[in-house]
Amino acid sequence: MQYVHNFNPTISDDEIFVNILEEKEHIGYYNLVSQETALYKEYAKTVKQKNIVVIGIGGSTLGTYAIYKFLKHSKELSKKLFFLETTDPIDIQSKIEGVDLEDSLFIVISKSGTTVETISIFKYLHSLVEINADNCVVVTEHDSKLNHYAKVHGMKQFEIPKNVGGRFSVFSAVGLLPLAIVGIDIDSLLNGAKEIHDGFFYDKNGTRTRLLKKARFFTEYKNKFNINVVFSYSSRLEGFNKWYIQLWGESLGKIDINETRQGLTPIGIIGPIDQHSFLQLIIEGRRDKTVTVIKVENFDNDLEIPSVTLEGLEELDYLNGLKFSSLINKQADATIESINAVKDIPCDVIMIDGVCESAIAGLMYEYKLLTSLCAKFMYINAYDQPGVENGKIILKKKLENKN
Amino acid sequence: MQYVHNFNPTISDDEIFVNILEEKEHIGYYNLVSQETALYKEYAKTVKQKNIVVIGIGGSTLGTYAIYKFLKHSKELSKKLFFLETTDPIDIQSKIEGVDLEDSLFIVISKSGTTVETISIFKYLHSLVEINADNCVVVTEHDSKLNHYAKVHGMKQFEIPKNVGGRFSVFSAVGLLPLAIVGIDIDSLLNGAKEIHDGFFYDKNGTRTRLLKKARFFTEYKNKFNINVVFSYSSRLEGFNKWYIQLWGESLGKIDINETRQGLTPIGIIGPIDQHSFLQLIIEGRRDKTVTVIKVENFDNDLEIPSVTLEGLEELDYLNGLKFSSLINKQADATIESINAVKDIPCDVIMIDGVCESAIAGLMYEYKLLTSLCAKFMYINAYDQPGVENGKIILKKKLENKN
Repeated sequence: MQYVHNFNPTISDDEIFVNILEEKEHIGYYNLVSQETALYKEYAKTVKQKNIVVIGIGGSTLGTYAIYKFLKHSKELSKKLFFLETTDPIDIQSKIEGVDLEDSLFIVISKSGTTVETISIFKYLHSLVEINADNCVVVTEHDSKLNHYAKVHGMKQFEIPKNVGGRFSVFSAVGLLPLAIVGIDIDSLLNGAKEIHDGFFYDKNGTRTRLLKKARFFTEYKNKFNINVVFSYSSRLEGFNKWYIQLWGESLGKIDINETRQGLTPIGIIGPIDQHSFLQLIIEGRRDKTVTVIKVENFDNDLEIPSVTLEGLEELDYLNGLKFSSLINKQADATIESINAVKDIPCDVIMIDGVCESAIAGLMYEYKLLTSLCAKFMYINAYDQPGVENGKIILKKKLENKN
Repeated sequence: MQYVHNFNPTISDDEIFVNILEEKEHIGYYNLVSQETALYKEYAKTVKQKNIVVIGIGGSTLGTYAIYKFLKHSKELSKKLFFLETTDPIDIQSKIEGVDLEDSLFIVISKSGTTVETISIFKYLHSLVEINADNCVVVTEHDSKLNHYAKVHGMKQFEIPKNVGGRFSVFSAVGLLPLAIVGIDIDSLLNGAKEIHDGFFYDKNGTRTRLLKKARFFTEYKNKFNINVVFSYSSRLEGFNKWYIQLWGESLGKIDINETRQGLTPIGIIGPIDQHSFLQLIIEGRRDKTVTVIKVENFDNDLEIPSVTLEGLEELDYLNGLKFSSLINKQADATIESINAVKDIPCDVIMIDGVCESAIAGLMYEYKLLTSLCAKFMYINAYDQPGVENGKIILKKKLENKN
């Protein structure tokens, strides 16, 4: 008997780990945790402008926004960060009205260098303000056409390595440059990410087992639970949710080596707000969702409900004297208990330490590893996005035909 | 032979319409389109404060935010609207820092009158500023405990009818009061909603057929396509997306009369931003999603890409002279074409006329009707939310035990 093997079944944890180690040799994001950061910090010191305007879209902005949104009210930041990322004319106009362009540094970020949205907005800025080496830097691949433009104008350039994909690029120049400029401690960011990196690769703190089990669960149950909800109990994590949606959706929505469509659908919601929106669907709806609740252990904030009694509302006096940080975490716990009470909704909880650089960076690195692992289990390439190419070709044709 | 009938199969369009007509007798949102608005407009004229601070959560804020976010940059509004809606202490603090509380009108909105988040924040405000009949009004059910408080203090009260659920309440005092105060034309809002109301109930412009077909499709294919993506091509519609997610998720995530879990999962994304995030998953992922693309026909905005040539980027000169409003709509068209090209993703397109009151209100009323219709087809009650009650009980216990 002869036999041709053509099935690709689930592989073992050990095999997956070996695969990831091999991948780490050529996929760039893994090792960004131990890079040299001096070039960002040195450049940051030279920036005189008060406003930092990032022009980019998708992977060029989402990670930076996630970290900035998480930290901006808890740190004394020296500068303000703005994002121009869409072609909606009203959005562009209203955002630009709020910025003093004469006191702005423009950071143009595009991995390919030819992103339509980014270049359109960048061109538009040329009609409002003089763009030159004093107020503009680019972040792009070393041989991109945008880099050529920067060279012609003597502008400072920062490189996105070819082997770091946009949605995995937050710890490259894409994120580190603007974050360093506004005053975020990028070494603490990398340390937070490195802790998870080391935990996984050197098998500390149960990190490797945790990630492998979670990735295996998500992929083994992917046909039943095709939706993965991240329920973040802090409005500070709104940017993280958006970043997660891109990372998860764009990395895992793929055709696998068996020519089968794969895809785990990410949803990001915010507690307690979405207790009043999405929770009903989780609890009573179809069993097609996993839920990961993210809690901030320490808000480092003393805001308290005062001992005020409102006539008629005395029944709510049990709220008096309670800290809001305690209230929101008890709300998270109540949600977790109510989900667990129905028994058949897979639910896990991530507690991050505080509103600090290392906490958000660790969370993001954890999710990147999880994404890479799920992709391995699913026999797909996490790092490309062939599905959006056709839309780009159609758009180009439409726009060229207009002329 | 005797026979006991215990199946509830799909019902006909005519039966559904009769059911909705019956429901219209006792579910209040349907008829809000033809109410008297003088009381809101009269009160709005008396408001002296520059800042309008809404304290509420879920259905008490999402609809108002959707309309305000859609219109605020396109209308000359006389006042600014703020929303305090979460117990995240950093969020509360940073929002309050941006508002002059001494020049603020506080609108406390809670249907039940005892919403934990709303009352907690309201109590906190008492520690910052004197709250009295001159700077505070309440919007609640006529016999709620919050109304009792308002009466004691001689505060103006506006009623949420008992038969109008929170997520269906945007065209009641919940939305009309704050929107009228900041200068939005609430009669135009109601006219926009009324056009869809009349289209459906008097069978004009194909509205009834369109809505019935769409609701029937969503429910007949609910086990294959359990996710309904709304892909809005304007950042102005970000609030609408959030409102849609509550409306759809909380109304349709229910146990039906056959004791079977139902639930259509809403996702709201923004174009073109999410072409760089979620589109890959739509195109190459599992076929578990329908897609509704929403386009704004007329942005009434002349922002244009100037005829600037960037060295090295000459290939993108086809963008020169293009209006951003045209670019974003061509991006929407390219996305629609690329989705249709793969043939097996159900996709429809809604074009709204412009950035005006009637357009957003019509869109919202359309979605409310669609939700009611899906619920009828699915034999569920669109208007309750029993699944979140247990979490509230658990939270109350946790908080009372602390004392």
